[in-house]
Amino acid sequence: MGGDHGCGVVIEGAIQALQADKRIRALYLVGDRAQIHAALPRGGFRDHRMRVVHASEVLTMDDKPAAAVRKKKDSSIVRAMELVHDGKADALVSLGNTGGIFAAATFRLGRIAGVDRGGIATIIPTPDQHFVLLDSGANIECKPMHLAQYAVMGSIYSREILGCQNPRVGILSIGTEESKGNELTLQAFKLCKRLDVNFIGNVEGHDLFKNHVDVVVCDGFVGNIVLKSCESLALAMFSLLKRELTANPGRQLGALLAKNAFRAIRRRMDPEVYGGAPLLGFNGVVLKAHGSARERAIASAIRVSTESIRHDLNGIIAEQIARADERLSAEAAVVTAA
Amino acid sequence: MGGDHGCGVVIEGAIQALQADKRIRALYLVGDRAQIHAALPRGGFRDHRMRVVHASEVLTMDDKPAAAVRKKKDSSIVRAMELVHDGKADALVSLGNTGGIFAAATFRLGRIAGVDRGGIATIIPTPDQHFVLLDSGANIECKPMHLAQYAVMGSIYSREILGCQNPRVGILSIGTEESKGNELTLQAFKLCKRLDVNFIGNVEGHDLFKNHVDVVVCDGFVGNIVLKSCESLALAMFSLLKRELTANPGRQLGALLAKNAFRAIRRRMDPEVYGGAPLLGFNGVVLKAHGSARERAIASAIRVSTESIRHDLNGIIAEQIARADERLSAEAAVVTAA
Repeated sequence: MGGDHGCGVVIEGAIQALQADKRIRALYLVGDRAQIHAALPRGGFRDHRMRVVHASEVLTMDDKPAAAVRKKKDSSIVRAMELVHDGKADALVSLGNTGGIFAAATFRLGRIAGVDRGGIATIIPTPDQHFVLLDSGANIECKPMHLAQYAVMGSIYSREILGCQNPRVGILSIGTEESKGNELTLQAFKLCKRLDVNFIGNVEGHDLFKNHVDVVVCDGFVGNIVLKSCESLALAMFSLLKRELTANPGRQLGALLAKNAFRAIRRRMDPEVYGGAPLLGFNGVVLKAHGSARERAIASAIRVSTESIRHDLNGIIAEQIARADERLSAEAAVVTAA
Repeated sequence: MGGDHGCGVVIEGAIQALQADKRIRALYLVGDRAQIHAALPRGGFRDHRMRVVHASEVLTMDDKPAAAVRKKKDSSIVRAMELVHDGKADALVSLGNTGGIFAAATFRLGRIAGVDRGGIATIIPTPDQHFVLLDSGANIECKPMHLAQYAVMGSIYSREILGCQNPRVGILSIGTEESKGNELTLQAFKLCKRLDVNFIGNVEGHDLFKNHVDVVVCDGFVGNIVLKSCESLALAMFSLLKRELTANPGRQLGALLAKNAFRAIRRRMDPEVYGGAPLLGFNGVVLKAHGSARERAIASAIRVSTESIRHDLNGIIAEQIARADERLSAEAAVVTAA
């Protein structure tokens, strides 16, 4: 119910995903039944695996997430989480209010044992590659341990889902030296050094788009600002490019001749191919797709969610988080005994 | 002594600035005399207003700023600050270690009465305009009052030096509502509402490049990361553009026909025209130019520093900070009395 383009686009994306993957056994459309039926394409679902689960309420962008999730028990996001919680579904994809999805996952799914806070990971494209930014807006006031756990979870996501063999993990800070940063990052650095991940230390803003790092951890305040600033700048540069290239006929001709170059850049820097942002650390696979996602992006998000299930992402996270906690508490014990 | 391209470029920039502005009475080149003389252009200074002040030491990028400023008493940055402190110079331009410049300004110039912390303001270009980002890396752990004072100082800089009539001031946060943010921004919001500036509330990353805001305040940790991330993304997009436009002869021809468009974009998004980042809140005008600054950028920085003097930037800051402090403490008294 949460997308900018209405139910029809979501249904079409879901149909594409089902057509591409015969192993999906069922796909539930959770929301207002009347709206969903009204938005059905000609010929109905055209796939017996598609089902509607009615929910009479919707979380809006104005709702306070935690309070709304508690109050609107018949909202589509709460009902969808219950399907996952009850084992009727393995994964959930939503285009709605990010805070609401996060709150619903926290209350209805709960966190994987050992995980202190869930996080939202965003995959940000770069000219040569991409990197995972975690947390990108859910956990505003982080503790050092949260960043350490993000390092573990982000590393697993990068390896299992994005296919990066030995992901380089960095803490986003204001200098590469261990001594540079704020209280949070200085403490997190000490923890991350002890983890069984490929920790490369601090990374700066300058490192982000140079293929220096695969997983960037930070608190949700910083992550959200970096994510949105970069999105905003990329859009601004595209619009400036368009304005300048259409300023006179000579430039227009040049732009026409080089149009495949611009298309390639747009494709390269398009976050839609990654299918949305995974919420990591919960007892269930949850993906937040962009509110403006269209058919292709929704199909991608569904594809990514099935991959997360097949790779047993959450099983691996549970195992590695337990190992990380063991390492860190063993270290702490040594320090105390010394 | 701190630039990437050596003394020669700095001297040439200084000569250009002197030629453009006959009202400058003296320009001191502070640094190693032998190196400066060796880098002189043919014909020497060609201007009697140019003088050399010898300094035997240099702050390097590896120095810990505060300690190095205390220890290296004969470093060029310390000697240059002394010229300002002693009234021999009105303004200082440096290409060196930002932390070192900030520490030297703190120790040798001191802060304007009433200013709790100095800050570094960066002017960031956008497709249609620019905005001032403050603090962009000096004050890592900020208090709410620091952000409020940045709102005042940034607003003055935007009006007096950048010519913005009624600068819109925003706090960088993760949502526009007053309730969105971290502890620091929530408290700073309450203070900024009471100031005599055009405070528009919180701004998000999405607002930065859309001409929604003229002065963006944040702590130095966030500011530095946003600044560097955006610089990095802009460079990455230029290099991607170049790669794609040279990929085959058709695109190359197109790029040639549209080359003025790319030139216009580069010029529009080039931070060098702003002449560097002012350090605000100190008893003296201080500008940090980019380490990679060339002649034109150095001349710009000198021009901006003379404008800051002529507009009595620091006099206005002193007056407005005193007024702001009065307003905020009067409010506090009312609250206490109630």
